[in-house]
Amino acid sequence: MRAVVMHGPGDVRTEEIPDARIVEPTDAVIRVGAACICGSDLWPYRGIESLRRPTPMGHEYVGVVEQIGDHVRDIRVGDFVVGSFVASDNTCDICRAGYQSRCVRQVMMGSVGTQAEWARIPLADGTLVTVPGSPTPAQTASLLAASDVLGTGWFAAVAAEAGPGKTVAVVGDGAVGLLAILAARRLGAERVIAMSRHPDRQALARSFGATDVVEDRGEDGVAAIKELTGGYGAHSTVEAVGTQEAMTQAIGATRAGGHVGFVGVSHGVELDGLNLFLSSVHLHGGPAPVRRFLPDLIELIMKDEIDPGRVFDLTLPLEQAADGYRAMDERCATKVLLTL
Amino acid sequence: MRAVVMHGPGDVRTEEIPDARIVEPTDAVIRVGAACICGSDLWPYRGIESLRRPTPMGHEYVGVVEQIGDHVRDIRVGDFVVGSFVASDNTCDICRAGYQSRCVRQVMMGSVGTQAEWARIPLADGTLVTVPGSPTPAQTASLLAASDVLGTGWFAAVAAEAGPGKTVAVVGDGAVGLLAILAARRLGAERVIAMSRHPDRQALARSFGATDVVEDRGEDGVAAIKELTGGYGAHSTVEAVGTQEAMTQAIGATRAGGHVGFVGVSHGVELDGLNLFLSSVHLHGGPAPVRRFLPDLIELIMKDEIDPGRVFDLTLPLEQAADGYRAMDERCATKVLLTL
Repeated sequence: MRAVVMHGPGDVRTEEIPDARIVEPTDAVIRVGAACICGSDLWPYRGIESLRRPTPMGHEYVGVVEQIGDHVRDIRVGDFVVGSFVASDNTCDICRAGYQSRCVRQVMMGSVGTQAEWARIPLADGTLVTVPGSPTPAQTASLLAASDVLGTGWFAAVAAEAGPGKTVAVVGDGAVGLLAILAARRLGAERVIAMSRHPDRQALARSFGATDVVEDRGEDGVAAIKELTGGYGAHSTVEAVGTQEAMTQAIGATRAGGHVGFVGVSHGVELDGLNLFLSSVHLHGGPAPVRRFLPDLIELIMKDEIDPGRVFDLTLPLEQAADGYRAMDERCATKVLLTL
Repeated sequence: MRAVVMHGPGDVRTEEIPDARIVEPTDAVIRVGAACICGSDLWPYRGIESLRRPTPMGHEYVGVVEQIGDHVRDIRVGDFVVGSFVASDNTCDICRAGYQSRCVRQVMMGSVGTQAEWARIPLADGTLVTVPGSPTPAQTASLLAASDVLGTGWFAAVAAEAGPGKTVAVVGDGAVGLLAILAARRLGAERVIAMSRHPDRQALARSFGATDVVEDRGEDGVAAIKELTGGYGAHSTVEAVGTQEAMTQAIGATRAGGHVGFVGVSHGVELDGLNLFLSSVHLHGGPAPVRRFLPDLIELIMKDEIDPGRVFDLTLPLEQAADGYRAMDERCATKVLLTL
């Protein structure tokens, strides 16, 4: 089958690899309907994370079930399905507490690869959610967003306790940050401050519900948030980058007793214990348990109440995936959808 | 007046200093009924925190109001009062959200000193809570505990979301850790695991409601907690020490999606962002907003429903404060009460 494989920094190829197949009796194989490139795929692309060998890429997907293993009970051949970037049994204590991304039997979908014609989905019953009806192309894009960036942005907003009467600041204007804005507004936040310097992303942020935009960063960014919030800082802050600067900015922008939801995969971040102690914020984050939110997100999407698919600003066929990586690396595209 | 003054590491003296007096019209002056020595007083005693000059010590207190400033409305001369280690207006947005320890007008009582015959209490109306009736000596000791160690342990248990059905691990067997055990049980926790190596503290931990004791520390301690919790880790963990080892142990002992409440004043703690990200825990702590809990704690104490005063295992007159510091430093005493 055709699949996207990263051979090294900056070297992404669409090439032939062995077909996806059932390995465990709890697996399903789906024909991928659409996949996409994630901001986290850029870490190895930029050489910040190392690759030991050529690696099939991708962990976001929607598709139609083509085969199921003998132990699969709830998912059926022909179902149009969405899953998250972590396969989970959805039955262990951790899953039942809503942390499916940390399932005791978790399988990272990045180790499987979904930028491909077919994909093996481990723990299919726990991982996949069937979409009712037939999604339109716009809904398909939104469902694909739900697979990771929307689910992650939603978790970030929930982790930051965005809600009625709250002012929410969002650090990071990538797809996750933009969709955290959408989530914060859907969760009832009164005011959502996007921290962004890019006019096109600022426009998208406002269309997703941002009420204010702050262009300053670092200490100036913190000062700007404080000025907008009576000197107190935001009630809730989303960190959707993963760098030291972003994390420091997020904690600094949050009032004592407020909540920071951090979902940027940390790269070289160190937190000083005393500063954190004195900040008096709540800190929660990690790999988003997207599976927790999928049923609700699918319903909102299929009712056309949210349109997170608008984060995709470049659509390319799988064969041109390399162009998509380049566009995201150069920040010419926010999020690239790969068609099959 | 007589007061305890620290002149340098290991050098504590009870000596004459100028009388406490009203400085701001929102101040009160209390005749201190009892004071105590805090674990945090040991940091400068041990030279881990430096002192620039001889410093009046103490930030815990109960007493009777002797004078009030012109703007004090709610507190009256003759009231028996308790306050926390942070004076707060109790009216700003941060106070009203329950974070009085980060009040925008906060005054640290450690900068005032309460190991003395009298003490100036800034922002008296916001800071002090009047005790109804006449406390017994045992109740007085418990009210003094409420001023800091009980309030801090309580906050830690609340920050760790201790509650029904939860297993709570407590790192640290000082007064705060011990009282976090009491708090966790009062909040409904099913199981409370004390991490302690000292037989006398283990006994006190059990008397406050600990159901299990773990003597191992570090990675072994984490493994022991996991073994007691079906491999998952505790739902809630209290960190009441402030060292790297304790913080690492607390985060490691907590299941994904669980909560760490940390109240040990951080000394040299660094948190690796990626480890924290992958832990998926909630982290919340800082200087405890004791004022939030004082009315409820006073009620529980005056109804004899809790007896936190039992953490005081050494009572000395103010004149012998130096012996009290030495006993706590050498861990011969858990918590020293100073009588006046």
